[in-house]
Amino acid sequence: HRNTSTAQVLYNFTAEPGNNELSVREGETLTILNRTVGGGWIEAQNSRGQTGLVPEDYLQVSTVRSVGWFCVQSVTESNELGDVIYMDKAAVKIIFNLSAEAVEDDDGEWDDDWDDQSVSSYHGNNQVDEDTGASGRIILCLCRFPFSKGPNPEVFLLAKPPSNSRDRLPVYMAEVGPVWLYPTSPLDCVIADPKKESKLYGLKSFIEYQVTPNTTNRPVNHRYKHFDWLYERLMAKFGSALPIPSLPDKQVTGRFEEDFIRMRMEQLQAWMSRMCRHPVVSQSEVFQLFLAYKDEKEWKAGKRTAEKDEMVGPIIFSLIEPEAAELDAAQVEHRCEHYSRFTKSMDEGVRELLNVGHTHWKRCTGPLPKEYERIGRAFRNLSTVFNSSKYPGEETLTDALTAAGKTYEEIAHIIKQQPQNDLHFLLETNSEYKGLLGCFPEIIAVHKAAVEKVKEAERLVSAGKISNSDRKCMNHRISCMSYSLQAEMNHFHSNRIYDYTRVMQLYLERQVIFYQQIADKLRAALSQFTTL
Amino acid sequence: HRNTSTAQVLYNFTAEPGNNELSVREGETLTILNRTVGGGWIEAQNSRGQTGLVPEDYLQVSTVRSVGWFCVQSVTESNELGDVIYMDKAAVKIIFNLSAEAVEDDDGEWDDDWDDQSVSSYHGNNQVDEDTGASGRIILCLCRFPFSKGPNPEVFLLAKPPSNSRDRLPVYMAEVGPVWLYPTSPLDCVIADPKKESKLYGLKSFIEYQVTPNTTNRPVNHRYKHFDWLYERLMAKFGSALPIPSLPDKQVTGRFEEDFIRMRMEQLQAWMSRMCRHPVVSQSEVFQLFLAYKDEKEWKAGKRTAEKDEMVGPIIFSLIEPEAAELDAAQVEHRCEHYSRFTKSMDEGVRELLNVGHTHWKRCTGPLPKEYERIGRAFRNLSTVFNSSKYPGEETLTDALTAAGKTYEEIAHIIKQQPQNDLHFLLETNSEYKGLLGCFPEIIAVHKAAVEKVKEAERLVSAGKISNSDRKCMNHRISCMSYSLQAEMNHFHSNRIYDYTRVMQLYLERQVIFYQQIADKLRAALSQFTTL
Repeated sequence: HRNTSTAQVLYNFTAEPGNNELSVREGETLTILNRTVGGGWIEAQNSRGQTGLVPEDYLQVSTVRSVGWFCVQSVTESNELGDVIYMDKAAVKIIFNLSAEAVEDDDGEWDDDWDDQSVSSYHGNNQVDEDTGASGRIILCLCRFPFSKGPNPEVFLLAKPPSNSRDRLPVYMAEVGPVWLYPTSPLDCVIADPKKESKLYGLKSFIEYQVTPNTTNRPVNHRYKHFDWLYERLMAKFGSALPIPSLPDKQVTGRFEEDFIRMRMEQLQAWMSRMCRHPVVSQSEVFQLFLAYKDEKEWKAGKRTAEKDEMVGPIIFSLIEPEAAELDAAQVEHRCEHYSRFTKSMDEGVRELLNVGHTHWKRCTGPLPKEYERIGRAFRNLSTVFNSSKYPGEETLTDALTAAGKTYEEIAHIIKQQPQNDLHFLLETNSEYKGLLGCFPEIIAVHKAAVEKVKEAERLVSAGKISNSDRKCMNHRISCMSYSLQAEMNHFHSNRIYDYTRVMQLYLERQVIFYQQIADKLRAALSQFTTL
Repeated sequence: HRNTSTAQVLYNFTAEPGNNELSVREGETLTILNRTVGGGWIEAQNSRGQTGLVPEDYLQVSTVRSVGWFCVQSVTESNELGDVIYMDKAAVKIIFNLSAEAVEDDDGEWDDDWDDQSVSSYHGNNQVDEDTGASGRIILCLCRFPFSKGPNPEVFLLAKPPSNSRDRLPVYMAEVGPVWLYPTSPLDCVIADPKKESKLYGLKSFIEYQVTPNTTNRPVNHRYKHFDWLYERLMAKFGSALPIPSLPDKQVTGRFEEDFIRMRMEQLQAWMSRMCRHPVVSQSEVFQLFLAYKDEKEWKAGKRTAEKDEMVGPIIFSLIEPEAAELDAAQVEHRCEHYSRFTKSMDEGVRELLNVGHTHWKRCTGPLPKEYERIGRAFRNLSTVFNSSKYPGEETLTDALTAAGKTYEEIAHIIKQQPQNDLHFLLETNSEYKGLLGCFPEIIAVHKAAVEKVKEAERLVSAGKISNSDRKCMNHRISCMSYSLQAEMNHFHSNRIYDYTRVMQLYLERQVIFYQQIADKLRAALSQFTTL
């Protein structure tokens, strides 16, 4: 087993006896055995060799992405003091090398694409604080992705608007408030037909997914690695303004197993559909490039162009063109606070639903059907005993009792399968939203930092250190940022209402069928008994 | 707390965490806190002061009856060697005194009735082995109740039939084989209207139940102690031939609580109905006396007469009058074996059903509804968060989501109440049958011992030690015993088929309503969502 992966335990977890669970303590390191158990559970082994299921949420899995995030999160955490840690290619390589033994790339290859990726432009921005000549402190984190090339927001707050208007992001006023420009026919795509492909004469294998956009109806093939590249580019470009949810996690073992491939395809589909539904993302050049993939050569050329894109990070706000009047600072701050509270509360709500959902999943696939099986077997056993009485007319009872026993065994089976039928979608949707909500703190932090910067500017104006026109420019820009945030929140809200309505309907529909099916089966079992 | 009771732990039990259970080890002594928890659970405290629920079946509760049984069971266990331990009144008193501190009589009185009960006749039978002059070994246990006055079966096997034919027990041949004589109109009675009464100027309180037989329609009042007396008399008289199930256990604490009184009345009703349904028991003088109770004076006189009844223990078999031909020994042995196997297997089946039923009860009243409550609350919380968005049209989702949340909270409540609605009856019936089946090993042992005695007699005939006419008499008597056993088994079978059909119908009917109700509630919740 070269492809092992480890996880850090985040919280204590006590196993329920008899349920194949593993008790773990905070800080413990586990070896991941299976990530496709479902229902929010991961199969793991502790240092004493004991194995069992542990809730996904209790673990920090050390995949390549997690390692990347770990570094980045420490950046994010320290950035309130204004320190930004830049990592050059060498540092990034060290991080990867640390885990290269333990974790492989999705398709067993490491370097073939990383090498032609330009990360050297970091060095160009390394001195950005000196360039701006402002307060001398870098207030904003340069996003949590190590490859970000974006300048800090002060550049945006005072920079000239870009000459190229092709990328402009208009914000319109609708009934609900500021909204993005939505395309007349919404983009969507279907991911299907996962195929195992290989290269290097069969030495390296990978899964290729067929992605068919409704615009061209022409299928293009992409590997997980391509999705990952797209994610990184979207994060770099839009991460300061829009929530770009993570891809489904990199898989370490069992990535060619049918169940895993099906699950990953479903998750990639959900991710792509969400990206397609976003008017800014779906219309971006890099996203269109992904959907227009023709051959390896054109793809690599497109990638190189995309990676040279200068309009990434906070500078993206300079593309915002609101049709409505400039907002005043107090209003901007108020809205920002409101969104911050909302996303935090919703995050808590979603986590609680995920927690109880995972517990419920476990019960419905574990002890509960086992109990129904035992009830069914107890009825059938009793029926077998009764049959041995040789008492005349016994079979009027035992035929019915056996049928009742079988019914409960069937019900056990239905119960066991049910979470996959209903709870699954409820949990998937909430997981998606957990991912989206996880992006907002940073988006809101970017906004808040800009607000603080503008407040500081007000003081510098009084002190005569900033010109009145510069201040006006900054006020205009912060208003644009607020329109962007509002447009995004409105996009989020309308999608949320749609998604939750849809998933609740699906969940309840399936639950009704489930309970109705059990009631009907029991009614049939009841009818077998002779009325006395 | 004078009225404490203790229990011995029979098997190890590991508590499920978070379910208010108590882990216990075999041999441990517990203090009983509450026996009316329901679902086969008892609340107890261990020596370290920890409290929690323990399955009833894992405990041997030390009530007066248990103490009595314990002594008796050791008699039963040692009797294969032929030793019978006679206990005189003093010994019996010692046993009671041992537990008198810990356990009280049902209504807080000990001696008022025991003193006028004649146990001195033991001494008269003490020399019974010398009287019979047979093998010199007492083969049969004199039943497991300390007050039995019955002679050993050899007395029956060779004794003259009783002159009084009033008590004869005819056995007829029906389609199903040998059957008792059933009364044309079946006896039944209703137990109702439990009242707290007191005597000794209010110092002693007790519950009096109103018992109304369908024959006289005249209600009579009885205390638990009276039922207990009836049980002891029925055991003494019929215990060798018919299963006389135990009464509901004596209660130590909380016996005046409403729930307990309701539960006990229900159990006394079940016990009385079963006794009424038995053609031999229901027509016996002692049973009729119980139903004809007029006043204390007549009752005491009747009791004294009943206690002087000579036709108790194995001698009861001499009353059996089969209308069919004498059975041969091989057939008798074969039938006995068959019944032994059947009752053992059924006992195992019933215990397994009780076990899974108790586990299921626990789940349905504990973790499962808690989970549904949490799901409901998670929906409602999310709905509250959504409402704070102030996004136009939000309430189309949140109204429905709140309703869905409430629905799951209602379902939690339904689930929690349900075991009392359906599982309760299934478990009560199976508990009753566990009690009945617990009587058969002794009935079958009495039969087997007689069979062995007859075999031995055959050898003694060859050796010229028993006359041919004595052997013929013994063959006739063993045939009668077998008819009795067969009549009883047929009674048991027909009642069993009736009871299990009835209780399964009830269980399934209630289960159908339960699942249908949930399906309907969820359908209503679903209809609240606006179709997208």
